[in-house]
Amino acid sequence: MIDDVHLDGDGPLQHQLYQQLTQRIIHRRYLPGNRLPSSRQLAQDLGVSRNTVTAVYDQLKAEGFLQSRAGQGVFVHENISPSMLQPGKGSTLRPLSTSGLLPPIPQLTDRHINRAEDASLPFQPGLPDLEAFPIRSWNRILHHHESRRALRGYDSTQGYRPLRRAIAEYLRSSRGVRCQEQQVIITNGAQQALSLIVDVLLEPGDPVFCENPGYRGARYALASRDNPITPVPLREQVLDVDALNALGPAKLLFCTPTHQYPMGGILDISQRMALLHWAQRNQTWVIEDDYDSEFHFHKKPFAAIQGMYEDAPVLYVGSFSKTLMPALRVGYLVVPEPLVEHFVQSKRTHGGESPLLTQATIAEFIETGQFTRHLRRMRQLYRGKWLHFQARVAEELGGLVTPVAESAGMHLVLEGNFDDQELSRWLRTQGIGSTPLSAHFTGDAASTGLVMGFASASEREIEQCVSLLKQWLTSSMISG
Amino acid sequence: MIDDVHLDGDGPLQHQLYQQLTQRIIHRRYLPGNRLPSSRQLAQDLGVSRNTVTAVYDQLKAEGFLQSRAGQGVFVHENISPSMLQPGKGSTLRPLSTSGLLPPIPQLTDRHINRAEDASLPFQPGLPDLEAFPIRSWNRILHHHESRRALRGYDSTQGYRPLRRAIAEYLRSSRGVRCQEQQVIITNGAQQALSLIVDVLLEPGDPVFCENPGYRGARYALASRDNPITPVPLREQVLDVDALNALGPAKLLFCTPTHQYPMGGILDISQRMALLHWAQRNQTWVIEDDYDSEFHFHKKPFAAIQGMYEDAPVLYVGSFSKTLMPALRVGYLVVPEPLVEHFVQSKRTHGGESPLLTQATIAEFIETGQFTRHLRRMRQLYRGKWLHFQARVAEELGGLVTPVAESAGMHLVLEGNFDDQELSRWLRTQGIGSTPLSAHFTGDAASTGLVMGFASASEREIEQCVSLLKQWLTSSMISG
Repeated sequence: MIDDVHLDGDGPLQHQLYQQLTQRIIHRRYLPGNRLPSSRQLAQDLGVSRNTVTAVYDQLKAEGFLQSRAGQGVFVHENISPSMLQPGKGSTLRPLSTSGLLPPIPQLTDRHINRAEDASLPFQPGLPDLEAFPIRSWNRILHHHESRRALRGYDSTQGYRPLRRAIAEYLRSSRGVRCQEQQVIITNGAQQALSLIVDVLLEPGDPVFCENPGYRGARYALASRDNPITPVPLREQVLDVDALNALGPAKLLFCTPTHQYPMGGILDISQRMALLHWAQRNQTWVIEDDYDSEFHFHKKPFAAIQGMYEDAPVLYVGSFSKTLMPALRVGYLVVPEPLVEHFVQSKRTHGGESPLLTQATIAEFIETGQFTRHLRRMRQLYRGKWLHFQARVAEELGGLVTPVAESAGMHLVLEGNFDDQELSRWLRTQGIGSTPLSAHFTGDAASTGLVMGFASASEREIEQCVSLLKQWLTSSMISG
Repeated sequence: MIDDVHLDGDGPLQHQLYQQLTQRIIHRRYLPGNRLPSSRQLAQDLGVSRNTVTAVYDQLKAEGFLQSRAGQGVFVHENISPSMLQPGKGSTLRPLSTSGLLPPIPQLTDRHINRAEDASLPFQPGLPDLEAFPIRSWNRILHHHESRRALRGYDSTQGYRPLRRAIAEYLRSSRGVRCQEQQVIITNGAQQALSLIVDVLLEPGDPVFCENPGYRGARYALASRDNPITPVPLREQVLDVDALNALGPAKLLFCTPTHQYPMGGILDISQRMALLHWAQRNQTWVIEDDYDSEFHFHKKPFAAIQGMYEDAPVLYVGSFSKTLMPALRVGYLVVPEPLVEHFVQSKRTHGGESPLLTQATIAEFIETGQFTRHLRRMRQLYRGKWLHFQARVAEELGGLVTPVAESAGMHLVLEGNFDDQELSRWLRTQGIGSTPLSAHFTGDAASTGLVMGFASASEREIEQCVSLLKQWLTSSMISG
């Protein structure tokens, strides 16, 4: 009966023989009660050692595929009973299929979300200068911790305590955030922070406000439970705080007060005060995404709105993706103390803890002052790139694009009246990243342009990018 | 007007002065139009350098707190307008408060979930032998990758491709899983895998089946959207497959077919076939949590049910927490190809990517064969501990507890008629981890006992644990 067994596939002979015999029994080509050749005979027929066959037979007996009967040989087990499977249908079994079980294609699929290979192109928004990362000092710290037994096991769901302490200290002194280490929750990047906020604070139907244009990752997370999302327009590159009163109640408002993403504006002090008092009156939680305040070039950045008032209804979100490396996938969330246990519970349920070695390395990098020094160096570096990129844009692209130039951050928006999706796609074929400005709008885009992340670009790449832009824009003018 | 400013707190003087002035303006102790002393005067009054005051004044002007009027001095900015804040209420502002915004205490809070400090006690279920981890070979691999620029940026949301390839190859050859690398999704431990499954496949109200007793982490994740959970009883330490037909439809069934958690039974081949055909008939996805199949002591483990049939409705979940280190927080999920994009989309929305350096290190550890060798060594080590623990339990605790002894895994269940919550708590005060068996039941516990994770215990700790158990159990017999 085993004439059709051939051991000529991949992997060890024993594994192949096991696979072939089990598949024949599962698919009922060998039926319960059928007799198998002796191990000696099968070994001879297949040209393998008898030990191989014996090991497989033993495994199959232990698993209930086969049974020995004293003096009679080895049989397919009688108990593999078809009656258990499909009553009344004897030995026929339909093949399995998952086709009826598939959910509809997810609605959030967004052609603007970049593929992995695009994420490391120069000018890709959000990408820091990876060459400038102080990898040798970083690795020295990594080596301090890499063999510690205490960093091999389980740890607090909330996050490694020395890291929470270092972040709290940094946020208090550099960003004016009011927090203690017990309010800090380590997250898997800012994206998980937003997902946890949705899980903890949103009930079905609760309305959510987002800046428009705004950060798409936030919109996806905040819309993930089908809550209604109201886009809040900007005025002069910042959230239009006066417009909020007319928009009704909201449970959450997502905003980037210290460097609006992507337009770059900064809420002034009156707007900040008005925003918080609006939130308080309306029982709204403000999500403050402080994604790149470390890179303001001409003055210290505005302190976080989280710290303006004692007990403000603000959830503060930050990340090390831009200040250290995206590959770390570590962010943080600061919440009022009565909410901490809610967030820890949510993180415990959904996963999202960071490797302890990664957390310990970041903690020491901050504690030893290297983080602040690194930020200072990067601020200088990015300022130089920003000046250079702006100068080249002014010289070469005057009349073709309008730079929206706040003196901060890692990206510049070049507004202009062109098909930004098409230009962004074409640039990608030339090895240059960007996102189309129109993709940051909910509904109809009020303007078009490119979001260009200059932080990751070298001087040569800046030159190259500007001349590619000039080439495309002039030829599209002529043809258009 | 600034008599109440005193720079004697923490941090740089400039930071303190900034904080004190902004707080006074925000809280309207200094009102719009009020004049401030000149920088020279204030520096003298406070006993600080004039540069300090000038820098703060400049910052506050840039942020809109202050304004200069030519020849007249520095004033609180007129535009910080109370009318924006609370129309008709002049300059009074209520203090902010988050008390009205707090959600109710989360319902899932579970006193049985251990705190961080308990998670590394010997005998804590799920904890591997951290001393036996080959940290030097591991660090050699870490050093291969630690300086690679390609591991600093963004990467595929689905997971680092060489790691997905290595996992697919391992699962095909060692676990009989049918998969290609494009079906593997790297997750933040098994917990995130379960959370993604809920996000992708469950609609509100969809029923979910879970083994009872079973793995609590799974129950929390699967119940996180308030779907109804039906506990499925065990029969002879395994999921009672025959009982499924009477329980109605389910969208998801969570099970541990190759080593039931915590009872340790193994589904035989007939039960496996029946389970999958039941799932197919009922349009149910089976979640196969293959959490410790690497540690079967007397024979090779049963191949995964995922691989039994082409196109079976199975979602396969695994993790490196037990096979490598919990601190890595890396797991994996294998799904049918038409579902991959759904899962990637969900992971993109909710976060949960692992650091690239961690992923690359695991990949090389597998590719170079060190993972398989490590598993072989651990299997030997755990087998020795298992034999020793069982022998000591039989010698010392006969009549007091009944070991539920499957020859596999990293834990042993000691059943017995005692208050398992109380014993588990007491053991913890003695430095010994465990979980009470009753905590693994939904609703009323059918039996009591202790789940003891012997993998992390040394020989001395095994001795110590057995004598502590004897002490407590004999004294509770006498007093009871």
